[in-house]
Amino acid sequence: MTKLAVIGPGLLGGSLALAARRAGGFHVSLWARRPEAVEELRELGVADEASNNLLAVADAADVVVFCVPVGAMAALAEQVVPVLRADTLVTDVGSVKAPVVAQLAPIFRTGARFVGSHPMAGSEQTGIRAARADLFDDAVCILTPNGESAPEAVSGIREFWTTMGCRVMEISPEAHDDAVAAVSHLPHLAAAALVNAVAEKSPGAFDFAGPGFRDTTRVASGPPDMWTEILSSNRRAVRKSAEAMIAKLEEFITLLDSNTPESETRMNQFLTQAKVQRDSLRLVRDAGLLQ
Amino acid sequence: MTKLAVIGPGLLGGSLALAARRAGGFHVSLWARRPEAVEELRELGVADEASNNLLAVADAADVVVFCVPVGAMAALAEQVVPVLRADTLVTDVGSVKAPVVAQLAPIFRTGARFVGSHPMAGSEQTGIRAARADLFDDAVCILTPNGESAPEAVSGIREFWTTMGCRVMEISPEAHDDAVAAVSHLPHLAAAALVNAVAEKSPGAFDFAGPGFRDTTRVASGPPDMWTEILSSNRRAVRKSAEAMIAKLEEFITLLDSNTPESETRMNQFLTQAKVQRDSLRLVRDAGLLQ
Repeated sequence: MTKLAVIGPGLLGGSLALAARRAGGFHVSLWARRPEAVEELRELGVADEASNNLLAVADAADVVVFCVPVGAMAALAEQVVPVLRADTLVTDVGSVKAPVVAQLAPIFRTGARFVGSHPMAGSEQTGIRAARADLFDDAVCILTPNGESAPEAVSGIREFWTTMGCRVMEISPEAHDDAVAAVSHLPHLAAAALVNAVAEKSPGAFDFAGPGFRDTTRVASGPPDMWTEILSSNRRAVRKSAEAMIAKLEEFITLLDSNTPESETRMNQFLTQAKVQRDSLRLVRDAGLLQ
Repeated sequence: MTKLAVIGPGLLGGSLALAARRAGGFHVSLWARRPEAVEELRELGVADEASNNLLAVADAADVVVFCVPVGAMAALAEQVVPVLRADTLVTDVGSVKAPVVAQLAPIFRTGARFVGSHPMAGSEQTGIRAARADLFDDAVCILTPNGESAPEAVSGIREFWTTMGCRVMEISPEAHDDAVAAVSHLPHLAAAALVNAVAEKSPGAFDFAGPGFRDTTRVASGPPDMWTEILSSNRRAVRKSAEAMIAKLEEFITLLDSNTPESETRMNQFLTQAKVQRDSLRLVRDAGLLQ
């Protein structure tokens, strides 16, 4: 029996507990900070045990997974490291990786084996009541080892996520953050900026919004607290990708302004390039939402 | 029997012919430029008659609807005006209105009664084979009378679109163009700019695209020729809305850069405002696509 300690009772932590119990062979211990949350976890029967005693949950764990907001991880990690073995596998589900790896890797350098993860599963819904045992099925999970990661830790955590239903890919923490800035964080920021621009300049236009506007702005309905943390944690890469999008919008405005046959041809090329690229998109997952 | 002349055999013209025949009481005459298109229309039996003889199609029509690209309308309008009566109702389905009204209203000032329309129905599919009798059901159709429009023309064209299944709204051509720039043209441009920015700066990131990226960029798959014409025809309003979006992106970048507790609060407010607005969105139509 593998002892799995899940630190955090939200959608991802709850779903991970359910997925581990579905897989079998795990004793799942789930930590929540608030006593009422612990009560709820016990009522729902999501895990084998639920507690707000962090050291009891983590004690003698074989695998520890941090499922709390990125900003809360380091303090919890410092607390649990004394009760872990040197071969305990530790990972997290944060959707930004370079800052998390920079904080957690040193904490676990001797007391356990840490490699950061980002299972690309989620939902606009949040909280334990949205948890599902199949949330990770066929989801891509990105492992982000760096030069210091122990090979046994990488292979062990890869095997863990595979058991949870994920397809595992590996890239560096920095390459991960650039990639998710481009295809997840920038789309969120762009959707919010689009909605706010219309609200400020043309509020009456919302009366004419149709399915095109609906889809282009859907992700702007995501939870603001979570997204504030994601965007600010990944500020370097988000900034770079937002600047790239501004440059493309300005390129098109220049074409609109010049109003020549040649500029029309270049507008058409701009839109054609986007269409070809968009039409050839292969999604990492058809169901569920990329955070 | 009302003679309806539909000028143009694409998705909208074909669907209009089908909707009129479904409604009953219309003799539908449909014009296409190319002989092969006329053959296809005859085989499909979309209209009572199909021809590439423009004057025969328009002759003695009670209602004429231009369903060709915006740039092709004026030349065709000049040709048909001699065969129309002074009380013939004339409209169009162009998705940009100020330039169309500026061109067509003078042509029909004495020879017929023109009011511009924009039925907000369409599809990423194009062409006669995508035509459907129910394309306009529950779609909003925006009428754009100006100070010179005859009241009888406005009421007659309103009744026509209602018979086709539309819910009719009225605003000025300029207000229409501002509104569709905000909720239709800017979303298209933003989606294309987002795809092109990722393609240029982070092409490897497409491997990690999920449903959020898919939805945010869906409209970028629309036909480039049509969208080049729409965006360039509405350049003034598109430019203004694109500048507003750039300003919002820059506002957020400034918050990312300042990296203080106050700037985090303002990021949260930015995202919260967008979420509240997006959550309260009432769409003009649930099915079909806004152009």
